[in-house]
Amino acid sequence: MKTYTVAILGITGAVGQEMLQILQERNFPVGKLIPLASGRSAGSSVTFRGQQILIQEACAEAFQGVDIVLGAAENDIAIAMAPAIRAAGAVFIDNSSAFRMDPNVPLVVPEVNGDDVKHHNGIISNPNCTTAITLTAVQSLRQLGEIKSMVASSYQAVSGAGVAGPAELEAQIAAYSKGEPLTKQVFPYQILCNLIPQIGPEQEDGYTAEEMKLHYEGRKILHLPDLNVSCTCVRVPVMRSHSISVRITFDRPVNAEDARKLLENAPGCKLVDNLSNLQYPMPLEASAQDAVLVGRVRQDLSDPCSLNLWCCGDQLRKGAATNAVQIAEILIR
Amino acid sequence: MKTYTVAILGITGAVGQEMLQILQERNFPVGKLIPLASGRSAGSSVTFRGQQILIQEACAEAFQGVDIVLGAAENDIAIAMAPAIRAAGAVFIDNSSAFRMDPNVPLVVPEVNGDDVKHHNGIISNPNCTTAITLTAVQSLRQLGEIKSMVASSYQAVSGAGVAGPAELEAQIAAYSKGEPLTKQVFPYQILCNLIPQIGPEQEDGYTAEEMKLHYEGRKILHLPDLNVSCTCVRVPVMRSHSISVRITFDRPVNAEDARKLLENAPGCKLVDNLSNLQYPMPLEASAQDAVLVGRVRQDLSDPCSLNLWCCGDQLRKGAATNAVQIAEILIR
Repeated sequence: MKTYTVAILGITGAVGQEMLQILQERNFPVGKLIPLASGRSAGSSVTFRGQQILIQEACAEAFQGVDIVLGAAENDIAIAMAPAIRAAGAVFIDNSSAFRMDPNVPLVVPEVNGDDVKHHNGIISNPNCTTAITLTAVQSLRQLGEIKSMVASSYQAVSGAGVAGPAELEAQIAAYSKGEPLTKQVFPYQILCNLIPQIGPEQEDGYTAEEMKLHYEGRKILHLPDLNVSCTCVRVPVMRSHSISVRITFDRPVNAEDARKLLENAPGCKLVDNLSNLQYPMPLEASAQDAVLVGRVRQDLSDPCSLNLWCCGDQLRKGAATNAVQIAEILIR
Repeated sequence: MKTYTVAILGITGAVGQEMLQILQERNFPVGKLIPLASGRSAGSSVTFRGQQILIQEACAEAFQGVDIVLGAAENDIAIAMAPAIRAAGAVFIDNSSAFRMDPNVPLVVPEVNGDDVKHHNGIISNPNCTTAITLTAVQSLRQLGEIKSMVASSYQAVSGAGVAGPAELEAQIAAYSKGEPLTKQVFPYQILCNLIPQIGPEQEDGYTAEEMKLHYEGRKILHLPDLNVSCTCVRVPVMRSHSISVRITFDRPVNAEDARKLLENAPGCKLVDNLSNLQYPMPLEASAQDAVLVGRVRQDLSDPCSLNLWCCGDQLRKGAATNAVQIAEILIR
């Protein structure tokens, strides 16, 4: 079997760690693994398939002989490293937002637009976590009609802020239970027993950067340049799964029963929708697995062309690392 | 000054306790306070204006000579006691949902339809907490045009389940921090670090009872019999303030700037809307005070006739006890 040399750029972060785990779980044909991080972490090691592998410093030379780079670093690192990655002939599957809206870079959710992978020029972008989860939930419903617009409210886990996010929530739980003052560094306000309705800086018309991602990335991934998505993104005290309440408007009347039938067989999804048995998606259930849980499917009460649903997905897996490894699987197919 | 004999039916519950507090805070002209509860609590006492007052058992005879009954009991108690309250000539301001949709019973948010109080026949209903908070936030925007529909996603505090709700979340925080198993009685699943997208039983078309309240109660309070509200109600690990992400559709084009101007002077509201200074409504800030905090006001990206906003209000105060005492204030005016 052909094997590949795979580098993970940003191995020490939450998404990098998850990529390492998922390459193993999915038996990706890794011949050689190259874990890369900043100089600070170089010299420590990670365990991959039972072997200790030294972390190397991420630099232009590190990509020689690499086939695939899974990017789990911030935008500035992704931008700095991209030329060296391409020069080395590797394909860069990047989880940062740096290249997502570049018209020469495919932006891919495999269940939605896996074919776009083949148009790459050395870089393929992995979408925003909320976008990946929402679009995986929504994709099968496109058989009901063309999607015209969406209105979404998100309930986003602290893992979206990196490893320090869950650590801060854990520390606040510990401090609260001891009656000690709660400290904060990652989030601007206490997140335990609170909600913070801002993720990312203001971008346009009062919307945040996070909110506009579902709008712009949704257009690109769905190949619907006229799609409009109005999103309200909220950080909630949940560890690692994002939830989204979304209203989807189609170009024709739709109904919930047809939607449920499509969702039963939708790739990447698991329909969990039985109110009378208390069955519905919850972030605790969505965590540490790959399916996007979809439920609470309802006809909108004001518009026969709209449906409402609720979905949950693991932010680090389908929202990031799993989606990136799925792209790599398409690439080597 | 004329004073009134005021009974609180269900004094030991979270809302009953809050009513006691708010009567004092607002200097309601209480001549005599009669705290009522089930036989279990009769004989214990509450403190009102520095005085210890014995709790009496709620029974038909308890309402003799009472002017106003503030109801903080469940539907079955409200239904059982209503005839005796009316026979005693008292006015029943009831926080249960038992009479809300009765055409002979006004359902009142003072900032919205305070005038409806005068059409009472002995009973005035206090709305559902999410409804009261959302409609207080929305009322001033009706100067922009007629509201045609709303799409809402709620983030509801555990206090909505009664005193046992916050106690369960507190206990889960304590157990989690000790590494002990989390127990649950009030909520069907762990609520710490989780979200439960069901409040109340299934009612119709996949919507829960809680979700349909904003639809039906909204129509009645706003005097808009054709209004449609599609709601997704979610329990979140927050102690006592509800938050609502709502998209409001008007009968004509609207804009966020006009909306913000109206909200600056809206009764019962406080505009908190400055993203660049990290100013937005949060449930921690909304708690233990009466204003509904409103922010994140944005033009919808798919519809020029729609606005999106985010509001937070104390579930026990504006969502229940404060609203009831405000109704009593109108009644005696």
